[in-house]
Amino acid sequence: MSMSTGSIFIVVAPSGAGKTSLVAALLKAASDVELSVSFTTRAPRAGEVDGQHYHFVSRDAFEAMIAAGDFLEYAEVYGNYYGTSVRWIRERTAAGHDILLEIDWQGARQVREIFPDAVGIFILPPSLQVLESRLRGRGTDSTEVVERRLAEARAEIALVGEYDYIVVNDEFEQARTDLLAVVRAVQLRAPRQCERLARVLAQMQPAG
Amino acid sequence: MSMSTGSIFIVVAPSGAGKTSLVAALLKAASDVELSVSFTTRAPRAGEVDGQHYHFVSRDAFEAMIAAGDFLEYAEVYGNYYGTSVRWIRERTAAGHDILLEIDWQGARQVREIFPDAVGIFILPPSLQVLESRLRGRGTDSTEVVERRLAEARAEIALVGEYDYIVVNDEFEQARTDLLAVVRAVQLRAPRQCERLARVLAQMQPAG
Repeated sequence: MSMSTGSIFIVVAPSGAGKTSLVAALLKAASDVELSVSFTTRAPRAGEVDGQHYHFVSRDAFEAMIAAGDFLEYAEVYGNYYGTSVRWIRERTAAGHDILLEIDWQGARQVREIFPDAVGIFILPPSLQVLESRLRGRGTDSTEVVERRLAEARAEIALVGEYDYIVVNDEFEQARTDLLAVVRAVQLRAPRQCERLARVLAQMQPAG
Repeated sequence: MSMSTGSIFIVVAPSGAGKTSLVAALLKAASDVELSVSFTTRAPRAGEVDGQHYHFVSRDAFEAMIAAGDFLEYAEVYGNYYGTSVRWIRERTAAGHDILLEIDWQGARQVREIFPDAVGIFILPPSLQVLESRLRGRGTDSTEVVERRLAEARAEIALVGEYDYIVVNDEFEQARTDLLAVVRAVQLRAPRQCERLARVLAQMQPAG
């Protein structure tokens, strides 16, 4: 274990719960939390920066990483690989950085197997009615897709007990404050603070 | 266990760390957190309200409570009894209220023995120098008293690992935000949220 160890936050939500906006607001407010950067074999698009949007690697390099067991999870989509590197997460957290993973419930389980101290946060819609009207309100999905998303949402919500914290996204500003509170409280946990404050604490301890 | 169970927060700090102001700010911002109300046998002062500032009881009633083992801790000061009732805390938390106890490290240990889920928060001054200058700055205490307080502070700080969260009171506004974040995050923990959201969650679970 390194002297300063960051935390891993896993944020999971059913489609339509508002996760993307909440995570964006969190990353803006909590500048010390980094979104996990995936590895990919696809070519960078205009404006994409290596190491920031993705780690862009060759197909050979990616497959070598697969063989080395570097990936927490990976998938091939339209002929390109995408994956989350266990080693990258280990290095960033060992350097004291907090890492946020925006993944699905299956990914969350895999992460927890490798990093049992990862903090699981579930974003819950205030009700199924609200979720349904949000999904329909997008106007982009067919009735069948909306129905499937709702069924998936019910199944995901049944697993809510696997998470450490539950944030209800009813009113956005309250949900944003709540998500920030969870992240901040984890940073204030005694073991982490003791590591961070080791020098200050040593100076304050009684002599002998 | 009741269906809705509040949390117990224990806030401990060395003298001069700024606990009183921080707790006052917390109680103002988190209207759902109640300061524990002590029982006493002394007469109410002008403006003091029974059940709000203290529970005012007769000496006979207090001694009956001692005999019944009702007190978490009690003391006799200048001929009057003061005590914290275990039963009162149990009743308030069972009714879903969060209770905050402003006590010393010995009291904190007693509370944790009876309520192992109580959340311990330690308020830490940014350094011993700052603590010393705060204590001297009060101008109310002799050099001997300041020296004694500093020695006590060192001993208390040595026990910081017994607490769940550490809030450093360097800049007041940041410390206030941090204390609020800890309280809010505890309220968002999954087991508590599942209890609170039981009806909503039941409606969202898959059928069958």
